[in-house]
Amino acid sequence: MTQRILVINPNSSQRVTDAISAAVAALRLPGGPAVDCICLPDGPAGIETQDHVDHAGRLVARAVAQHEHAADAFVVACFSDPGLHAAREATAKPVMGIAESGLLTAMALGNHIGVISILAASLPRHWRYFRAMGIDGRVVADLPVGLGVAALSDETTTFARMREVGRALIEEHGADVLVMGCAGMARYRAPLEDALGRPVVDPSQAAVGMALTALRFNMRTSIARPEKPRVAVAGE
Amino acid sequence: MTQRILVINPNSSQRVTDAISAAVAALRLPGGPAVDCICLPDGPAGIETQDHVDHAGRLVARAVAQHEHAADAFVVACFSDPGLHAAREATAKPVMGIAESGLLTAMALGNHIGVISILAASLPRHWRYFRAMGIDGRVVADLPVGLGVAALSDETTTFARMREVGRALIEEHGADVLVMGCAGMARYRAPLEDALGRPVVDPSQAAVGMALTALRFNMRTSIARPEKPRVAVAGE
Amino acid sequence: MTQRILVINPNSSQRVTDAISAAVAALRLPGGPAVDCICLPDGPAGIETQDHVDHAGRLVARAVAQHEHAADAFVVACFSDPGLHAAREATAKPVMGIAESGLLTAMALGNHIGVISILAASLPRHWRYFRAMGIDGRVVADLPVGLGVAALSDETTTFARMREVGRALIEEHGADVLVMGCAGMARYRAPLEDALGRPVVDPSQAAVGMALTALRFNMRTSIARPEKPRVAVAGE
Amino acid sequence: MTQRILVINPNSSQRVTDAISAAVAALRLPGGPAVDCICLPDGPAGIETQDHVDHAGRLVARAVAQHEHAADAFVVACFSDPGLHAAREATAKPVMGIAESGLLTAMALGNHIGVISILAASLPRHWRYFRAMGIDGRVVADLPVGLGVAALSDETTTFARMREVGRALIEEHGADVLVMGCAGMARYRAPLEDALGRPVVDPSQAAVGMALTALRFNMRTSIARPEKPRVAVAGE
Amino acid sequence: MTQRILVINPNSSQRVTDAISAAVAALRLPGGPAVDCICLPDGPAGIETQDHVDHAGRLVARAVAQHEHAADAFVVACFSDPGLHAAREATAKPVMGIAESGLLTAMALGNHIGVISILAASLPRHWRYFRAMGIDGRVVADLPVGLGVAALSDETTTFARMREVGRALIEEHGADVLVMGCAGMARYRAPLEDALGRPVVDPSQAAVGMALTALRFNMRTSIARPEKPRVAVAGE
Amino acid sequence: MTQRILVINPNSSQRVTDAISAAVAALRLPGGPAVDCICLPDGPAGIETQDHVDHAGRLVARAVAQHEHAADAFVVACFSDPGLHAAREATAKPVMGIAESGLLTAMALGNHIGVISILAASLPRHWRYFRAMGIDGRVVADLPVGLGVAALSDETTTFARMREVGRALIEEHGADVLVMGCAGMARYRAPLEDALGRPVVDPSQAAVGMALTALRFNMRTSIARPEKPRVAVAGE
Repeated sequence: MTQRILVINPNSSQRVTDAISAAVAALRLPGGPAVDCICLPDGPAGIETQDHVDHAGRLVARAVAQHEHAADAFVVACFSDPGLHAAREATAKPVMGIAESGLLTAMALGNHIGVISILAASLPRHWRYFRAMGIDGRVVADLPVGLGVAALSDETTTFARMREVGRALIEEHGADVLVMGCAGMARYRAPLEDALGRPVVDPSQAAVGMALTALRFNMRTSIARPEKPRVAVAGE
Repeated sequence: MTQRILVINPNSSQRVTDAISAAVAALRLPGGPAVDCICLPDGPAGIETQDHVDHAGRLVARAVAQHEHAADAFVVACFSDPGLHAAREATAKPVMGIAESGLLTAMALGNHIGVISILAASLPRHWRYFRAMGIDGRVVADLPVGLGVAALSDETTTFARMREVGRALIEEHGADVLVMGCAGMARYRAPLEDALGRPVVDPSQAAVGMALTALRFNMRTSIARPEKPRVAVAGE
Repeated sequence: MTQRILVINPNSSQRVTDAISAAVAALRLPGGPAVDCICLPDGPAGIETQDHVDHAGRLVARAVAQHEHAADAFVVACFSDPGLHAAREATAKPVMGIAESGLLTAMALGNHIGVISILAASLPRHWRYFRAMGIDGRVVADLPVGLGVAALSDETTTFARMREVGRALIEEHGADVLVMGCAGMARYRAPLEDALGRPVVDPSQAAVGMALTALRFNMRTSIARPEKPRVAVAGE
Repeated sequence: MTQRILVINPNSSQRVTDAISAAVAALRLPGGPAVDCICLPDGPAGIETQDHVDHAGRLVARAVAQHEHAADAFVVACFSDPGLHAAREATAKPVMGIAESGLLTAMALGNHIGVISILAASLPRHWRYFRAMGIDGRVVADLPVGLGVAALSDETTTFARMREVGRALIEEHGADVLVMGCAGMARYRAPLEDALGRPVVDPSQAAVGMALTALRFNMRTSIARPEKPRVAVAGE
Repeated sequence: MTQRILVINPNSSQRVTDAISAAVAALRLPGGPAVDCICLPDGPAGIETQDHVDHAGRLVARAVAQHEHAADAFVVACFSDPGLHAAREATAKPVMGIAESGLLTAMALGNHIGVISILAASLPRHWRYFRAMGIDGRVVADLPVGLGVAALSDETTTFARMREVGRALIEEHGADVLVMGCAGMARYRAPLEDALGRPVVDPSQAAVGMALTALRFNMRTSIARPEKPRVAVAGE
Repeated sequence: MTQRILVINPNSSQRVTDAISAAVAALRLPGGPAVDCICLPDGPAGIETQDHVDHAGRLVARAVAQHEHAADAFVVACFSDPGLHAAREATAKPVMGIAESGLLTAMALGNHIGVISILAASLPRHWRYFRAMGIDGRVVADLPVGLGVAALSDETTTFARMREVGRALIEEHGADVLVMGCAGMARYRAPLEDALGRPVVDPSQAAVGMALTALRFNMRTSIARPEKPRVAVAGE
């Protein structure tokens, strides 16, 4: 029976979901896993605040639990990896987050990582995450384009800003590989790479790749399942 | 009018809440802020998994929003600091987390920090947090007592295990200051310190102290409020 | 009997001492500890060089020893924390340094710390300290206003330079919380915070807060008292 | 036309090469790239010293140059990643090293990485590499089985030692994900994972996965091609 | 019998070798070791790419083996330290690399290190090395002059660019000590230091100093000699 | 005229001073600088506490100032490097500290450093220093022999303890190079190295070597001299 990777876009935008689905098409191989992309109708329209992230995290964990038997691996397709660690506790199947995967993949493509983010408000959250991963020494800068998730659909404006930000990351901060800090930027990867002459990572592609690898080779996640307490606890 | 610090214990245990309230009594000073402790009836009985943390985080953020006008500063009294950053976006008033405050305070009391945790399952979550804070170089070890939150009420067993773990942190890992990794351990601080001869930090006390300081001196939090996107976004 | 926090300004300026005393007034609560501020008549006029720091350090350690029975906690009110660790060996009572306390407090208010210093000559000393604390990953920049301690009393010039430096820290270096790197800057905290729209930490306030907390909760310092050598040493 | 990933085992052992080929079979998908494994007849019998690594590195770079038009992506299948960066300068096509890929993949499967190495002599070399990658904060220990590459074919002895070392990594050093530090250990992954109950990464599998992802999504490597010097250089 | 330090310039330029020899003259003391400088006729004309480094590394290791009995200590005189670790395995005598020695020496002369490199293409290689040494926290920037090794002989152009780059390292990046990132820059040390008013380290001088010290005091290198495998390996 | 390196042992022990002088004899070369060793009669008998360090620091800075015209380079011969940075501000001549030099030299001899200290009480002070240098990632452990400075003269006991501690550093903590954390351990270097089979660094030797190198090549220290304040300060 065909294996299946379920990509969960935790916001409610079908358009973003379709763009992710198109972006990862090259890993839909005959005999390989299906790669299906869904969005969460109850999710925020765009994930811009910590509250959005935490809200989305709950929905993602629930979605993974609901689809546990209908998929063999999961991808959380939001650059804040909402619900990633809760989902990993909820299933023994591989769960990849696009931020984690995108950054790890960039570490194999270049030396100094620059991140193109949507909004300045996300930067402290991002840096907490870079540090939590233990890789902040490899990230030279994270610069926002200053556009909301929805605004990313205005292609001309968005691309111009992304190119401008990418150039600043390379020329002023010494980045030699870029990571797009949003699932909704997928369509800009190829033209951005052409314009900047440096590798640009679409984190959704990176995560589907890592999910496929983990799935095909039966890699487990190091689940931190709550062990049995040593002492029996009545009434809990 | 009297200022008020609201300590939110995100689990549902009144017993733990009462113990926290007793532990922080020494900062209830005439003319100073009231320090009121509540628990969340809808919260988990104990916070042991990432799912518990994420669930509690939503409740904490909501509670802070609800009490925004009825308090002048907030403390999140669970060692995973659930909802801390969302709460900081929800209010301009100081919000302190006990893990963050407890670790920062320990850095002023000793050189090498050892953490006494409840369950081994929390360790990866704790280390992600130590790294996210950028202080993992100061934490030499985090060892679990292997007892669930509820089991902590069996005082004899708990204290014996905490002393054993504390000794291992000091003698085998070189810790010279200890942080108790759970709001429910408050009653053991003084006897543990006596038994081990090293400073032991109750993180709830540390957090109330930091909240009081921030409140009295009108310190703001560096709120990462979502800035206005540069481009107007129709339909959002 | 009333408890007492003794704030030691190790330079000889009564004016700076008075300003510190005014700055920390909000933590003088009925029933709480007195907070008394003294300066050291033999101390340097301003602490600008390593030699000043080392000189002041000796005086601070001596002052702590002298007042050991007349105070319950101590604050060293110079941003180089002169004599801090010697003082901690000299008394079991809490001793806080304003640099350490200011930086730790900033870590709970923002993500990326910027420091406003007096003179460029202090920068290597500061960075040795940030690294010694293990928090250099959280400090994005330390910029000098280029004014000596005494010159800080020219309020117009000083404030203009501090605002300029603060802006550079925020806009060019990405700081989202600022620490004033001198006890003599206390009066500028509130207007600077208003002008910059980001939290600004007065390190003396932070240290009095941490001292109060440690004192009220009987926290010990992890004193590195010289243990008994294993082998008796004749003639020492 | 079918794409092709060329896996270069830089030692001369056909047996090890066959084992790698078997280990990566699950990523040979219809319509996907071929994954061909070769060894280098002139390579060392086993790669155990820095001299072996440097020797192998020259051969790998040459092999990549020779096969540049006959493959679309390359994997260097030795845990010291010999020649990896030279190969990346020699071709614009993706080149993955199994150490780099194995470690990055482990970072998505667990929190604290333990490495199972062949010989103690490799440890300083490994740690230089962990630090060069900027991820040494995630590696808790690297322990040798104390067996040469050839000896790894004695399955009973080898597996017993690997299990023993794996247990020490988990129980004494706190590892929650293990990386096998040798291409020649591929056959032991599954039984080791079963025996230890923690994820075990075969680095060759991880690298083929990352190569496949990079290849299918046209990711470039951030090639550090020597730029044109600013000043013309006669006679060079 | 007189001791002898052999300085190996791994490129084929006699001119650079002569300049190194002149630069280290002050450590040729009566009764002290001879300091002889050779270049490798088969080496690259200049070492600008990873391929050059790896090629040179093989030649260096071979040269150290060949001269093992004719010298008492070795210096590898190229800022990429080619073959350093292989050479250390090949002899129990001290082997110093100029990058490692130059950077370590700079750490005793200043706080924030700036590196003046030849070409931008070397930067990722350099940063991998700074991190491998575990000192990247002390290096604030590495800026290229953008001139090939041979072009360094055009003294006017080179010095002007080095001064410009040095100034940027100091004024824009906060460096207070500079390291020249190339053995071929020796002649510019003194004038550069005069022009910039900050210490400038010639790494060849630093390495000859460390070699002399190690040699005179019989310091061994911690040779990672391949231990005997635990299990006999037939046919290897 | 002959150059002169002045080695200042900041404690009052002539015996330790003589032992240092004997240990560094091999760098007294004809035509090279004299290496003279003095102790400070007013210094502590042994430097065991932070108070001793601070006291000694003042004496060292004064001694450097007094001998400024009578020496060309200075070495501070106590493993806490008392007064090092003040001395560097007091003279433009090279000043080396034995802790700094010993650790930097060890970084060129091995990968993982172990430190053999006198007393456990020094460990927090040492770790603050390792971190201040930015090299704590290279130090795997610092273990005390538990003997006071004076007791080090009981050679049998001391050597037995040092060997025991050295073995623990190597076998339990993975050190492959050791640094003796006290100027008074000089005589034990050679036998310890023989007994342990790993390089052992005498920090006084390392510092004299670095001073000689800096002196012979006219390297300056990056003196953080207090710049002229921008604004004139009346009456200071």
